[in-house]
Amino acid sequence: MNEGKIFVVGIGPGGREHMTGAAIEAIGRSDAVIGYKTYIELIEDMLLDKEILGYGMKREVERCRAALELAEKGRTVALVSSGDCGVYGMAGIMLEIAAESGCESDIEIVPGVPAANSAAACLGAPLMHDYATISLSDLLTDWSAIEKRLDCAAQADFVICLYNPRSHGRREHIEKARNIIMKHRAEGTPVGIVRSAMREGQFATVTTLGEMLSHDIDMLTTVIIGNSKTYASELGIITPRGYKR
Amino acid sequence: MNEGKIFVVGIGPGGREHMTGAAIEAIGRSDAVIGYKTYIELIEDMLLDKEILGYGMKREVERCRAALELAEKGRTVALVSSGDCGVYGMAGIMLEIAAESGCESDIEIVPGVPAANSAAACLGAPLMHDYATISLSDLLTDWSAIEKRLDCAAQADFVICLYNPRSHGRREHIEKARNIIMKHRAEGTPVGIVRSAMREGQFATVTTLGEMLSHDIDMLTTVIIGNSKTYASELGIITPRGYKR
Repeated sequence: MNEGKIFVVGIGPGGREHMTGAAIEAIGRSDAVIGYKTYIELIEDMLLDKEILGYGMKREVERCRAALELAEKGRTVALVSSGDCGVYGMAGIMLEIAAESGCESDIEIVPGVPAANSAAACLGAPLMHDYATISLSDLLTDWSAIEKRLDCAAQADFVICLYNPRSHGRREHIEKARNIIMKHRAEGTPVGIVRSAMREGQFATVTTLGEMLSHDIDMLTTVIIGNSKTYASELGIITPRGYKR
Repeated sequence: MNEGKIFVVGIGPGGREHMTGAAIEAIGRSDAVIGYKTYIELIEDMLLDKEILGYGMKREVERCRAALELAEKGRTVALVSSGDCGVYGMAGIMLEIAAESGCESDIEIVPGVPAANSAAACLGAPLMHDYATISLSDLLTDWSAIEKRLDCAAQADFVICLYNPRSHGRREHIEKARNIIMKHRAEGTPVGIVRSAMREGQFATVTTLGEMLSHDIDMLTTVIIGNSKTYASELGIITPRGYKR
């Protein structure tokens, strides 16, 4: 008999007020909470009566195995991810490993506000039309596939949201990405750069495709590049949908 | 003196437990709540002491003008959108109209869990890699631009999330979209169809690109089409990121 349960929980951008009730409840119901140390720290005060398993980066497989092991013992576990756990987060790898191992525990995915959307809210309304999210990390994806996505997204006039814009501290990824996009889009296209959206240390700035590389861009940053109709107003970046036609 | 305030609030998929604390607080602090009738109904019990302005579809500009008028009288207003208000929601049009009118009221965008992400959580983990969201509604966008986006997104192997898959009840949009995507992607590609994700009447099914048109698809449906590596498992649709390399 196995009544263990795994919640994979998106905790949103970090500020407690942007967590959903379901995420708070899933953590509250869990005996153990597993996650990347930095995210565990964001919710530490919720975990006083919990077993905490904090991990370093790149140890995603280990985290999932630990969750499975605990669940097999009948315990309830929350595996936490920042933003939405279903977007470059822990949901996929957890299901992959569970499916392979013939896991019989119940697994529930609890979505959260993704990083792209909390960053967008800090900037105005840049994601109001069709958009593409692209991670510039080539740890798990060939760089050529990333270049192809950048090129196609720019060509088709998607608003583009870049995750992991400065992978392993390498500056050339964001430079190459900017140059590919600029083949299809004007220098003056508004670009929003947001670091630590909706948590301590939030910083948001509006610049242009031509100027964006003169700003600090690091691993905690999300970059949103407007489409051909996006404009910067006093109230932030706006991608119009055309209601006024 | 004008101390009015407008919150543009994403209420998430509908189930109360998937609203963020900030969204609940914004509505709680508001004197008046404005929105599409169907969404107002989802949160009716939170609005007992509020002035309620419910509108029919396609009256977005009117809703924003009503919000501005109330704020100019010093009142606090919540303009609500389902999902994330920043994704095909009210944030953009509200900022557009406010910027034009030289509005001096404070406007705050409160993000929510977008429809794509709540649908994804019902299906497993389909959005785990780069994805594009495309609305098939050609009310405000030329169909040729939509076709170009479908083609480019399919070509570059994005996971594709379709909003408004059956615009004004016309079946041909989703058929055309499917056919464009199938030029670049195998018939057996997993497709998830979710209606009323995470609210009353939720229905989710997993099918394939080849078979998807034999399922009911309407305005309340979100369709998620996997990339070339997406697979269907017993635990749902999984788009792997490659951790196991």
